[in-house]
Amino acid sequence: MKVQIIAVGTELLLGDTLDTNSNYLSIKMKELGFDVYKRVVVGDNYDRLFKEIEEGLKQNDLIITTGGLGPTEDDITKKCCCDCLGKEMVLNEKSYAKLRNYFNEDEKAIQGNIKQCMFPEDAIVFENFNGTADCAMIENNGKRILFLPGPPAEMKPIYENQVQQVLEQFATDCIISETLNISILGEWDMNERVKDIIESSNNPTVAPYFKKDKRILRITAKACDRQTALKMIDAKKKELRERLGMYIFGENDETIEESVYKVLKEYDLSIMTSESITGGMIASKLVNVSGVSDYLKRSLVVYSNEAKVDLLGVKAETIDTYGVVSENVAFEMVERMFEKFGVDCAISTTGYASGENAGLVYVGLGYKNVIKTLKLQLHGERNKIRNRVSNRALAELRLMILENVSRETF
Amino acid sequence: MKVQIIAVGTELLLGDTLDTNSNYLSIKMKELGFDVYKRVVVGDNYDRLFKEIEEGLKQNDLIITTGGLGPTEDDITKKCCCDCLGKEMVLNEKSYAKLRNYFNEDEKAIQGNIKQCMFPEDAIVFENFNGTADCAMIENNGKRILFLPGPPAEMKPIYENQVQQVLEQFATDCIISETLNISILGEWDMNERVKDIIESSNNPTVAPYFKKDKRILRITAKACDRQTALKMIDAKKKELRERLGMYIFGENDETIEESVYKVLKEYDLSIMTSESITGGMIASKLVNVSGVSDYLKRSLVVYSNEAKVDLLGVKAETIDTYGVVSENVAFEMVERMFEKFGVDCAISTTGYASGENAGLVYVGLGYKNVIKTLKLQLHGERNKIRNRVSNRALAELRLMILENVSRETF
Repeated sequence: MKVQIIAVGTELLLGDTLDTNSNYLSIKMKELGFDVYKRVVVGDNYDRLFKEIEEGLKQNDLIITTGGLGPTEDDITKKCCCDCLGKEMVLNEKSYAKLRNYFNEDEKAIQGNIKQCMFPEDAIVFENFNGTADCAMIENNGKRILFLPGPPAEMKPIYENQVQQVLEQFATDCIISETLNISILGEWDMNERVKDIIESSNNPTVAPYFKKDKRILRITAKACDRQTALKMIDAKKKELRERLGMYIFGENDETIEESVYKVLKEYDLSIMTSESITGGMIASKLVNVSGVSDYLKRSLVVYSNEAKVDLLGVKAETIDTYGVVSENVAFEMVERMFEKFGVDCAISTTGYASGENAGLVYVGLGYKNVIKTLKLQLHGERNKIRNRVSNRALAELRLMILENVSRETF
Repeated sequence: MKVQIIAVGTELLLGDTLDTNSNYLSIKMKELGFDVYKRVVVGDNYDRLFKEIEEGLKQNDLIITTGGLGPTEDDITKKCCCDCLGKEMVLNEKSYAKLRNYFNEDEKAIQGNIKQCMFPEDAIVFENFNGTADCAMIENNGKRILFLPGPPAEMKPIYENQVQQVLEQFATDCIISETLNISILGEWDMNERVKDIIESSNNPTVAPYFKKDKRILRITAKACDRQTALKMIDAKKKELRERLGMYIFGENDETIEESVYKVLKEYDLSIMTSESITGGMIASKLVNVSGVSDYLKRSLVVYSNEAKVDLLGVKAETIDTYGVVSENVAFEMVERMFEKFGVDCAISTTGYASGENAGLVYVGLGYKNVIKTLKLQLHGERNKIRNRVSNRALAELRLMILENVSRETF
């Protein structure tokens, strides 16, 4: 089933209202196995909407419109589609009774709103329990137009409670997506490792994305039912996990801090951070995971040289000799955390967030007295650099723990 | 100027990514007095995109595309538009130099990404400082196509810092919006204070919004040119400032931490935080402001009771007697920061981020040995609560400083 979604409303084109309906409907169509090939936003303009509908009906089996069902002059969606199909508008008795009731028989208000009770002849009418504008679906030579209201709080319940079951009879397939979240590997590096899988996968498909600073592989399966689709996804996940191993830190909405928390919990490891460039961001990310208080008791923000010396005990001569943004300082910060606070795991950061060396960062990572450092050269604005350092440090610590743990068990 | 916006990306049509770029660009076009007549979302499909571009160029003066500028096979926007206009793709030397530098002369990576340096001949190329995909604008017989990247964090800075000034030369009517950012006052309280101004303002208009956890007043002026519009906005701002005074903490994109930084700088005040529920988030917000290192030297994340005692020196009996989430503990945390670290300003937090008392938080605020505490009862999920506590604590400290400073000067 080929689908086009048309959102109608000048307020959308002006940017006054963010169109979230089209995205919602895209997801719903995917679930039914329908293919959305195009989405359009047009204003409350008869000629332009007419043209879109006319063209859309040539290319698609189903047009879904949202908006433009209200009582005013500029609500033109139903009339415009009727004209396009050569159908008449007729009064729907049930909608009319509802309207009379809604306006308490106030004749003036009823006449002012009667447009909302007019529908194309032969339409299936869906009652709107959250607003006055009922909606409908019409059919013509095997092509269908569905009219939904604009406000999401009205549109979603109607779709879910009434429209979906009507559309389900045309559903052939079920399409489900899941994602694997990748850390540390760059885009190019990741692609190299799984290129052959991506290229040879048709169903499920595998596609790389970068979403909210997170590199992901999206696996999408099409099957006759949900269970079969999930099974297909599981098999593909297994294949990708064999290739990418510990670089996969989680699935779907899981964050890197959640995956670190899982590892801390599994191996019962305490953790602490001493942060310069990240200024508490790593600790703050960890604290966002409920339950982390069993493993993170304290952390330090040692933004100045003095603080690195007096709070943490880094030697002033290390800073003097190597500079504060150096491998040696990152290393010593972790060393001091082990000595002073006896934690199992530690992360330190020191770097430049702005200035000519912006993006040069050293990260210190410690796991049970093993210490390693990492030099990063990142790009972007201040907050982005700090966020990337935080995510990278957490991902690297997780990997370090897992690698050491797997060695310990042999 | 008639404009059509085309967002390119199969992930958009699948509903995996919400298209917010088109809305953002709608607002920006309105500011220039341009008319957006249509917005379209299409997948990474050459033929369908070609058709959209071809049709769009007939109806409009400017086509803006977002997305599809990356290095992979399915990134087709530039090539497709070039073909449509009969132009050749050529290597842009500056983009190429940037790419070589970005990948540290790694020849394999450079070749894998070289597509991002290819542009239509005669294109104006805009450098992307937040990603590898540079973007461009081309002109053909008075019609223009603008290529912008898909990720909003890359698209917005390029538009604002580079593209806007190029488009401004075609602007006729000028519509500009600016915002005043409000802290501490609730919606109802703020509206009460400025209701009459909102109702009596036609041009500029004044409208209250709640945007990204920030209460704002948006002032929108329409004039023949930018300068006139800005003058009109300035007059209205002055009127609102007289009414809301110190509750206005900044304008437009200014964050609460930036406004705190300004105050610290103006009065040369050192600052420190000791954070339990916020876990470093307040320090991290402050560290995001370039230059804050002159005022913030260190901070503590004292997430556990032990840490509050051993790192900060809070008395164990205070915690035992009043409970760790209490006014007394918040107060003593600030007291200890003054004693141990001799700072001018201090913020402490202690509270519940989850569990049955979730949202109950005490904030301690200190300015030059004056200490006050604040009890908050917030709603929402864990991270939202923590973020609100952080913003509120910063806003309250700013107000405390300003009130005390204004008293000192009398």
